[in-house]
Amino acid sequence: MPTVSNRSGQTPSSPIRRLVPYAEAAKERGVKIYHLNIGQPDIRTPKIGIDALKNADMEVVAYTHSAGMQSYRDKLVESYKQYNIDVDADEIIVTNGGSEALLFTMLACLDSGDSIIVPEPFYANYNGFAKSLGVNIQPITASIENGFALPPIEAFEKAVTPQTKAILICNPSNPTGYLYSKEELEQLRTIVQKHDLYLIVDEVYRDFCYDGNTPISVLSIEGLEQHAIVVDSISKKYSACGARGGLLMSHNKELMAAAMKFAQARLSPSTFSQILGEAMLDTPQSYFDEVMSEYDSRRKLVVNRLNKIPGVVCPTPKGAFYAFVKLPIDDTDKFCQWLLESFNHNGETVMLAPGSGFYATGGLGTQEARLAYVLKEEDLAKAIDCLEAALAVYPGRVQTVSAEVAS
Amino acid sequence: MPTVSNRSGQTPSSPIRRLVPYAEAAKERGVKIYHLNIGQPDIRTPKIGIDALKNADMEVVAYTHSAGMQSYRDKLVESYKQYNIDVDADEIIVTNGGSEALLFTMLACLDSGDSIIVPEPFYANYNGFAKSLGVNIQPITASIENGFALPPIEAFEKAVTPQTKAILICNPSNPTGYLYSKEELEQLRTIVQKHDLYLIVDEVYRDFCYDGNTPISVLSIEGLEQHAIVVDSISKKYSACGARGGLLMSHNKELMAAAMKFAQARLSPSTFSQILGEAMLDTPQSYFDEVMSEYDSRRKLVVNRLNKIPGVVCPTPKGAFYAFVKLPIDDTDKFCQWLLESFNHNGETVMLAPGSGFYATGGLGTQEARLAYVLKEEDLAKAIDCLEAALAVYPGRVQTVSAEVAS
Repeated sequence: MPTVSNRSGQTPSSPIRRLVPYAEAAKERGVKIYHLNIGQPDIRTPKIGIDALKNADMEVVAYTHSAGMQSYRDKLVESYKQYNIDVDADEIIVTNGGSEALLFTMLACLDSGDSIIVPEPFYANYNGFAKSLGVNIQPITASIENGFALPPIEAFEKAVTPQTKAILICNPSNPTGYLYSKEELEQLRTIVQKHDLYLIVDEVYRDFCYDGNTPISVLSIEGLEQHAIVVDSISKKYSACGARGGLLMSHNKELMAAAMKFAQARLSPSTFSQILGEAMLDTPQSYFDEVMSEYDSRRKLVVNRLNKIPGVVCPTPKGAFYAFVKLPIDDTDKFCQWLLESFNHNGETVMLAPGSGFYATGGLGTQEARLAYVLKEEDLAKAIDCLEAALAVYPGRVQTVSAEVAS
Repeated sequence: MPTVSNRSGQTPSSPIRRLVPYAEAAKERGVKIYHLNIGQPDIRTPKIGIDALKNADMEVVAYTHSAGMQSYRDKLVESYKQYNIDVDADEIIVTNGGSEALLFTMLACLDSGDSIIVPEPFYANYNGFAKSLGVNIQPITASIENGFALPPIEAFEKAVTPQTKAILICNPSNPTGYLYSKEELEQLRTIVQKHDLYLIVDEVYRDFCYDGNTPISVLSIEGLEQHAIVVDSISKKYSACGARGGLLMSHNKELMAAAMKFAQARLSPSTFSQILGEAMLDTPQSYFDEVMSEYDSRRKLVVNRLNKIPGVVCPTPKGAFYAFVKLPIDDTDKFCQWLLESFNHNGETVMLAPGSGFYATGGLGTQEARLAYVLKEEDLAKAIDCLEAALAVYPGRVQTVSAEVAS
């Protein structure tokens, strides 16, 4: 029998995947599960987009330009101005989801054996893409004590090796909800300029900022024109995860030409997602106001409730729709399995994403978990009821953990 | 300025791309171009699919299972039986286009430094995917003299090195239209069994077979259960190129588990393309009869007309919708540029894909070109009028080439 590639062996399985059989078994036993383990919102996709797709003339569903339809990219150019992002249409490549944008970015920047610095905890699939391409992730550990702020710049300085080609951050962050400040981005500028690195920023949660905070795009920072690459997506902004609409943007023409080769090899992004995406650029502000108000209420509910549970530490997320929490338990991998396998609260339980999957450094995150507040408040409250009841009886409960948390 | 990856430098640009500025300039001069350079059919996408998409309940466009919707995969299982393909739903991973299926297949089978044997001329983007992953293509040259049949099995035997991990063919072939016989597939079986290789077969043109020929899927060949991987797509079968619907299939469980890791890293295939694809499985036979009759007429027109032009050699394609022809000229790259830059016939010209882009061996294909017969007969006839008139006056015309062609 032929053998599979080493790269597939090194590519981690989805950290949540291990739990799926336990979730399925629980459902078969009639237990209701609140899914806080995945960033699949219950928010409706803007009707203006769905209607455009339904009304589109689609006699022949044809390829589009490999970089995306000109009309869509032109309209994106206008739309990005509101974020102080000043790009041309030829500085945008439309992709099949943010995932493909990240893949093309890594392919264009990084060779097998190269390294990329990523503050941890980070979006677990970064590791999947990196490993599949033979790229090493050099983690720099952020701390729950200061809400997962950018680690000291000296830590980045120390981590840079001759193999280091890029720094990758997610802003606002999945999984921590941390929103990087202009000052932090400027600190990163110092490092990437000094060592001639790319600064790749996953900004797919840009529109989810709370407490009056404004998102700072890396493309608005002066002096990063040749360094900055932005990965974006319609999945979260418009709750259209299944559309697979994404893009990458950069002012660096050589980088865009390199990425374009990979875009041409796969011929075309989805015509459907582009029709949807272009129409959704006209989504009325009232939609976003409503969605943000909803997420803000959910966020407050989650943070308030969790921090009242003895031993639980939940920093206040400034962006995205995740809370990354510390729990007074032995091991969240075990706890999450136990929640599905051995626990229910009035016939209900909750599914979380164990923290360890978001760290590249072994042994970290074992008391942490990510909660996606993507359910309506009523369900979130019940999910936290389950969590609270579970923590009271979980056999692996440990001494209360104390941590001073910046709000 | 940070530098782009070596892999992007090694990845070839689309071979047709170089011609695009000349095509644009010709259009600006008011010249009409018949595009035979790309496999984008003018055939309508089945209405049953478009209607299903338009009528779908899409309040929240959510992720699906990373391997594709269960309902879609179950229905695919039934549908494949007509091709003597007996797969389970968990032996299918639905992808964003055949391109992504090929990417996942290569990632799962091949490491950087590995080699893959591909008969040339081959679909140019195989090289793009291979180079992007550090994989070397070992070409084995097929010959226009026997209509691009499988090269002698001894040539494969000689090419196998310790780095060789797979053989990749396209059946029926883009770009040659050649349809591999059961005997040829069995010859490949001997080689892949002996050397423990994967046999990857791109079967996206399976439904386009002429003269009563039946397509033989590699998955129907006994003894290849652990070796065979099929790449498929809805792009060509249903003229739905922009939907980005594809899949990979294999009975090899280890291989599927490896591919699944990459599928999970990108979360989900397109929900839209799956709704479309599932509904299109109910496309009435009359649609395919009509389409095949149309393509068959086009094929006959192209082959008959081309072989009447002095010096032109056009083997009769048994499948797909391409003709790979030899022209009595110095260099098709130059000729194709000249067609756009310096020629018109009553204000019209034709765009072809130069043959060299389909060969990995340097210097081959310089007198060859691929024509996609994806336009209606009236336009195809005019396109060939242009080609005929062009060959009569092209300054780089050479002595008539003679080649005995198997029909």
